[in-house]
Amino acid sequence: MNRNDKQAYDRGTSLFSPDGRIYQVEYAREAVKRGAPVLGVRTVDGVVLAARRATQSKLMEAESIEKLHKLEDALGAATAGHVADARKLVDFARTTAQRERLRYGEPIGVEALTKAITDNIQESTQSGGIRPYGASLLIGGVENGEGRLFAADPSGTPQEWKAVAIGGHRDDVQSALEAGYSDDLSLEDGLTLAVKALLEADTELESHELNIVTVSEAGYEIVDEDTAAEVFADVTDEDEEEEE
Amino acid sequence: MNRNDKQAYDRGTSLFSPDGRIYQVEYAREAVKRGAPVLGVRTVDGVVLAARRATQSKLMEAESIEKLHKLEDALGAATAGHVADARKLVDFARTTAQRERLRYGEPIGVEALTKAITDNIQESTQSGGIRPYGASLLIGGVENGEGRLFAADPSGTPQEWKAVAIGGHRDDVQSALEAGYSDDLSLEDGLTLAVKALLEADTELESHELNIVTVSEAGYEIVDEDTAAEVFADVTDEDEEEEE
Amino acid sequence: MNRNDKQAYDRGTSLFSPDGRIYQVEYAREAVKRGAPVLGVRTVDGVVLAARRATQSKLMEAESIEKLHKLEDALGAATAGHVADARKLVDFARTTAQRERLRYGEPIGVEALTKAITDNIQESTQSGGIRPYGASLLIGGVENGEGRLFAADPSGTPQEWKAVAIGGHRDDVQSALEAGYSDDLSLEDGLTLAVKALLEADTELESHELNIVTVSEAGYEIVDEDTAAEVFADVTDEDEEEEE
Amino acid sequence: MNRNDKQAYDRGTSLFSPDGRIYQVEYAREAVKRGAPVLGVRTVDGVVLAARRATQSKLMEAESIEKLHKLEDALGAATAGHVADARKLVDFARTTAQRERLRYGEPIGVEALTKAITDNIQESTQSGGIRPYGASLLIGGVENGEGRLFAADPSGTPQEWKAVAIGGHRDDVQSALEAGYSDDLSLEDGLTLAVKALLEADTELESHELNIVTVSEAGYEIVDEDTAAEVFADVTDEDEEEEE
Amino acid sequence: MNRNDKQAYDRGTSLFSPDGRIYQVEYAREAVKRGAPVLGVRTVDGVVLAARRATQSKLMEAESIEKLHKLEDALGAATAGHVADARKLVDFARTTAQRERLRYGEPIGVEALTKAITDNIQESTQSGGIRPYGASLLIGGVENGEGRLFAADPSGTPQEWKAVAIGGHRDDVQSALEAGYSDDLSLEDGLTLAVKALLEADTELESHELNIVTVSEAGYEIVDEDTAAEVFADVTDEDEEEEE
Amino acid sequence: MNRNDKQAYDRGTSLFSPDGRIYQVEYAREAVKRGAPVLGVRTVDGVVLAARRATQSKLMEAESIEKLHKLEDALGAATAGHVADARKLVDFARTTAQRERLRYGEPIGVEALTKAITDNIQESTQSGGIRPYGASLLIGGVENGEGRLFAADPSGTPQEWKAVAIGGHRDDVQSALEAGYSDDLSLEDGLTLAVKALLEADTELESHELNIVTVSEAGYEIVDEDTAAEVFADVTDEDEEEEE
Amino acid sequence: MNRNDKQAYDRGTSLFSPDGRIYQVEYAREAVKRGAPVLGVRTVDGVVLAARRATQSKLMEAESIEKLHKLEDALGAATAGHVADARKLVDFARTTAQRERLRYGEPIGVEALTKAITDNIQESTQSGGIRPYGASLLIGGVENGEGRLFAADPSGTPQEWKAVAIGGHRDDVQSALEAGYSDDLSLEDGLTLAVKALLEADTELESHELNIVTVSEAGYEIVDEDTAAEVFADVTDEDEEEEE
Repeated sequence: MNRNDKQAYDRGTSLFSPDGRIYQVEYAREAVKRGAPVLGVRTVDGVVLAARRATQSKLMEAESIEKLHKLEDALGAATAGHVADARKLVDFARTTAQRERLRYGEPIGVEALTKAITDNIQESTQSGGIRPYGASLLIGGVENGEGRLFAADPSGTPQEWKAVAIGGHRDDVQSALEAGYSDDLSLEDGLTLAVKALLEADTELESHELNIVTVSEAGYEIVDEDTAAEVFADVTDEDEEEEE
Repeated sequence: MNRNDKQAYDRGTSLFSPDGRIYQVEYAREAVKRGAPVLGVRTVDGVVLAARRATQSKLMEAESIEKLHKLEDALGAATAGHVADARKLVDFARTTAQRERLRYGEPIGVEALTKAITDNIQESTQSGGIRPYGASLLIGGVENGEGRLFAADPSGTPQEWKAVAIGGHRDDVQSALEAGYSDDLSLEDGLTLAVKALLEADTELESHELNIVTVSEAGYEIVDEDTAAEVFADVTDEDEEEEE
Repeated sequence: MNRNDKQAYDRGTSLFSPDGRIYQVEYAREAVKRGAPVLGVRTVDGVVLAARRATQSKLMEAESIEKLHKLEDALGAATAGHVADARKLVDFARTTAQRERLRYGEPIGVEALTKAITDNIQESTQSGGIRPYGASLLIGGVENGEGRLFAADPSGTPQEWKAVAIGGHRDDVQSALEAGYSDDLSLEDGLTLAVKALLEADTELESHELNIVTVSEAGYEIVDEDTAAEVFADVTDEDEEEEE
Repeated sequence: MNRNDKQAYDRGTSLFSPDGRIYQVEYAREAVKRGAPVLGVRTVDGVVLAARRATQSKLMEAESIEKLHKLEDALGAATAGHVADARKLVDFARTTAQRERLRYGEPIGVEALTKAITDNIQESTQSGGIRPYGASLLIGGVENGEGRLFAADPSGTPQEWKAVAIGGHRDDVQSALEAGYSDDLSLEDGLTLAVKALLEADTELESHELNIVTVSEAGYEIVDEDTAAEVFADVTDEDEEEEE
Repeated sequence: MNRNDKQAYDRGTSLFSPDGRIYQVEYAREAVKRGAPVLGVRTVDGVVLAARRATQSKLMEAESIEKLHKLEDALGAATAGHVADARKLVDFARTTAQRERLRYGEPIGVEALTKAITDNIQESTQSGGIRPYGASLLIGGVENGEGRLFAADPSGTPQEWKAVAIGGHRDDVQSALEAGYSDDLSLEDGLTLAVKALLEADTELESHELNIVTVSEAGYEIVDEDTAAEVFADVTDEDEEEEE
Repeated sequence: MNRNDKQAYDRGTSLFSPDGRIYQVEYAREAVKRGAPVLGVRTVDGVVLAARRATQSKLMEAESIEKLHKLEDALGAATAGHVADARKLVDFARTTAQRERLRYGEPIGVEALTKAITDNIQESTQSGGIRPYGASLLIGGVENGEGRLFAADPSGTPQEWKAVAIGGHRDDVQSALEAGYSDDLSLEDGLTLAVKALLEADTELESHELNIVTVSEAGYEIVDEDTAAEVFADVTDEDEEEEE
Repeated sequence: MNRNDKQAYDRGTSLFSPDGRIYQVEYAREAVKRGAPVLGVRTVDGVVLAARRATQSKLMEAESIEKLHKLEDALGAATAGHVADARKLVDFARTTAQRERLRYGEPIGVEALTKAITDNIQESTQSGGIRPYGASLLIGGVENGEGRLFAADPSGTPQEWKAVAIGGHRDDVQSALEAGYSDDLSLEDGLTLAVKALLEADTELESHELNIVTVSEAGYEIVDEDTAAEVFADVTDEDEEEEE
């Protein structure tokens, strides 16, 4: 289909093109690719979520634009894409989790929360009055003692992953994850793999830019700068050794 | 009608073209064809639903993108097309089934559930504010001791079948079903026919990619990998024999 | 009016063209013509409704795509056109009939039901937010001991007929009805005329494809395959005799 | 204003053109002209409403497409134009009349009913979400012992007449009414004038096609076929005599 | 601004053009000019409203298309423009007046009623879902023992006048009013001035076409045909004398 | 930006152009400039509001189109632009002031009332369903013993002024205000400055056309014609003296 | 993407372009750049907010167009862009803060308030019926004894800063802030840095145009003109010294 033909179908939020595509959803995926990559790794002890802390200015508080978000005691999210849209989805997730706890006295499951989020997203792609969300989410948590990791894209499709990256340069990061993943990774191994994979897509990455959390039975825990720096040092040493 | 003329009518979700067609519904059918095929086979003991487990990456949990869904104790669905739309229809089906059970203490019938789903779909094709669903469903179950199998397409038309395929390469799979079907198939025969038909459309199919469920008086049961592998082996042996 | 001028007016569901036509309604009539014909014949004992059972595949259950529908104990409908739209109208008719019975303890009259249906259809042609229905209906029943037969088209106009065909090749079937009709037909005569008329439009028609019901004081009755086959045989014999 | 300029203003239901016209209303008037003419004649004893019974096929029940409608014991309407729209207005009129009777125990007056109808029509020409009605009505009845006759057009303007025609070939029929009308006509004279006027516009008119009612103190009465035939014979004899 | 530029702004009911105009309101003013003129004259004893009774056919009842309307015991209106729109505004005025009386047991004042009407009109020019009214009104009445006369135009602006004309040929009539007006006119003088002014715009006007009411302490009174004829005779005699 | 580019953005009431402007608001400002200027002057004793009484015809009551409006005991407004829009805003202001008094038994403050008005205006510029108001307002009053004067424009921005003009030829009047203003003006000085400034923009202005009010502790007071004439005489004498 | 392609996507408030951008939000950012810059500096004792007091005329009360707004006892905002939009957001912030205090008897936190504001803004960018806000905000306050400073842009993204500028010539001001900032600034140092940075972007700035507030434990305090003048003098002296 040439450009003119395509333009005829891509401006209605709720229209199919003749070949069965919904262009606004595909353009929202482009919005996701405009940001930095974030990733998740499922390990035997829980889930690792990681992102590069993207500071536009040394005067900006990096925390305020973090891409990792605590949703519940033992539930976290990593976001990529249009920041304000991502925040809205994170708020939706938190509200949903709180409501569940109030009603049933139990934390919401990772899968149930993911599906509530993707229902919300799908709705935005089918009704005429609203545009899709220009953001994707990773949702990680512990359910029945096991780590679980889901991705939610702008079409509203939930997918469960062992390890996955979303956002800009996603393919490079994903390749690194696939190369380094094994089913018996400990949380520590997961940390190492996460840092390796981020370095793959962005060789300029510096230690202090790492933003990592673990979600395990111990809850949502931010990996402190020292630990992150140690892992970073190990990974870069190892790489140099490999190169030698 | 040439291309320009057609374009004039295909962008309104609720417009007829001069030759009496609703293009958005036809484009939604294209969305259905973009996915892998799924099929259903009705046997004397119940219904077999089968799909190829389409794994994009070895790190993705195949279960999370399954195309087979339990709707009720003895009711299942197979979906093809836009994944998020399909999930929404499956959720609608589950909610409808639950409400029926709560109200009447009885499971909903296969036909009644199908018609509730297709009413919902038809509505999306007639009102202006929403696009059609880019997904088709097979609904299988047991009603009064007999297996029943329905298909619901993006126009909202319900059709009852003995055996049917939807999704990409549907025609090849359907031919195989027609060639191999007989009215006295047992559930086991149904399994074999299902695998044969999927192989017809996709000769690269491997045993572990098979995703099969049976819906019988015993309820919705997932066919375990070993059983699936056995059936697969039998079918491929047989094929080779035939080729000899 | 040339093509360009016409296109200027035919895309709004609720617009008149300069010559006073509503094009979306006329295009919905085209949707009706895309299907197979169905017909109704009023006799002294009740109404005959008949259609060709259009099976797309031998694996499809023909009943699930039947064009004849029981609305009430002694009320039936035959539908032509967009299948999902027709089903919605049939559901509307059934709900209307049930509500009437609940309120007044009496079955609704044929004319009253027809008018409820056509009001519903007309509404779809005047309000902006919905497209017209791409389906026409025949409604047949017994009222005060007499058979009555109505047609409802996409404009929402009700018409009472002695015998009428709608759908594709409607003109051929209607000619046959006009040639063979008389006011003193018995239900049996009506059956014969119905089969003759369907054969007129489709000489390939086979006996087992016949789908016929009678609506009389005895209620809505499906004509069984053997009876249909007998009538079919008589009609074709007669034709051959005539040809000799 | 040339054609292109005109087209710029005629597609919005609630827009004025630069010269202060509402084109959709004018196009709805064209819809009225597409049908056969109907007429009304006010006499000292009541009102005569008359139409040609337009039968498309000998199998159609002419009554079902009648253009004359009883609204109340002593209130009738004649309709021209888009049939389904006319029916909707007639239903609105009947419901209004019934509500009045329920509330006040009195029949609604001819003028009050006409104004309720024209309010309804005007609304359809000013709000954006609905198209105008493609139908005009004559409303005839007896009020305080006197016949009264109103016309309601697609703009929602009510006009009171002594005798008036609407629909196709309206001008010819109206000329005949003006030529033959006098203030002291009896109901019988009115019948004769009505038939004469219809013959003026349609010399092919046959006796059995006449559809005439009188609305007088005696209520809404359908003129039986024999009486109509007599009047028809008298009128045609007279014409022949005149021609001699 | 040339024609193409203008067209770009005149089709939205609630849009300003670059030079600060609202074209739909200006086009509605054109609709007002398409009708015959009506006028009002304020005198020391009350207000005179006058119009030419425009009969399209001798069979039409002139009263049914009158342009003068009683709103309350001592409140009247004269209307120009799109008839159905004018009627809607008159109905709105009557309902408003009745509600006021029911609530407070007092008749509504002329100015208060005018402002309620113009609020209603202004609303129609600012919201997107409705077109402006294609009609202007004169509202005349007695308030605190004094006659008051207001005009309301399609923009919803109320203006108070001593004497004013609206509708087609408004300028000619207004000139005549300005030439003949003085502050000490009696009701009789007002009648004479009204007839003179109407004759100025339409020299073909005949006595029986005059439609005049007075609104004074004595209430809303229709000037009978004889009185109107006398005034007419006096005015035309006077004119002839002047010409001599 | 050239004309074509501009047109692409100026027809949606709630759209930004690429350079960050909202054209419909800017066009509404043009509507304000189409009228005559009005002004306000804040003095130590209160506020002076002044306008030229624009009489279209000697038969029109000038009061009915006044541009100065009493809002509360000691609150007034001067309006420029589209008259019906201005009236709607004045009504809104009055209703707001009354509601405040009913609730709290206190008159609303000048600033609080201005902000209620500008909130209302801003809303009209952001939501899609309504056009902006084509009118600006000056709101003057006494608050805590001091005169205060605000202006509200079509964007909904409130500004407080010592002396300000809005409407047509605003710049000339504003220059005169700036030239003549000092912080210690008495109400009488304010009157003189107001007349001087109006004369600056319109040298044809005559004494009887002056429309002036003062809003002080004594309340909203209309300056009578004699006083206005005296001030006018003084100002014109002075001007002549200056010219000598 | 060339200009024509871009135009195709930038007129819908809720549409993505093919490269994943939302143009209306980007154009709203242009509206923010059209105004003068405002800035915020976080110090150890609280936050400094500063703006140039932009007086269009010496008769305008500068306070009425101030860009610094008290939101709560110890919460302030600085606004840039479309003034009426900024006011609406400030009102929203105040109402939110008041509601919080009423419910919980505690002042709302800086971050919580910022997020309520950005949620509101994000909503305006996703729903079809409203345009984005053409304004950005800085929100400064004291929370748990520490100053916090947030920025909210037209996309609805919140960012926390140590020191930040928004509005026209933002880049120049931000550079000056980055050059002069250190983590141990006292409120007094913050004042000096703020004035320096404003002078960087606008060398014409005069002392009396400075508009500065501090938000500290002592609450929201306006820096009086004398203090501002002193700081201004120090800064300009220093600059001159540096230049020497």
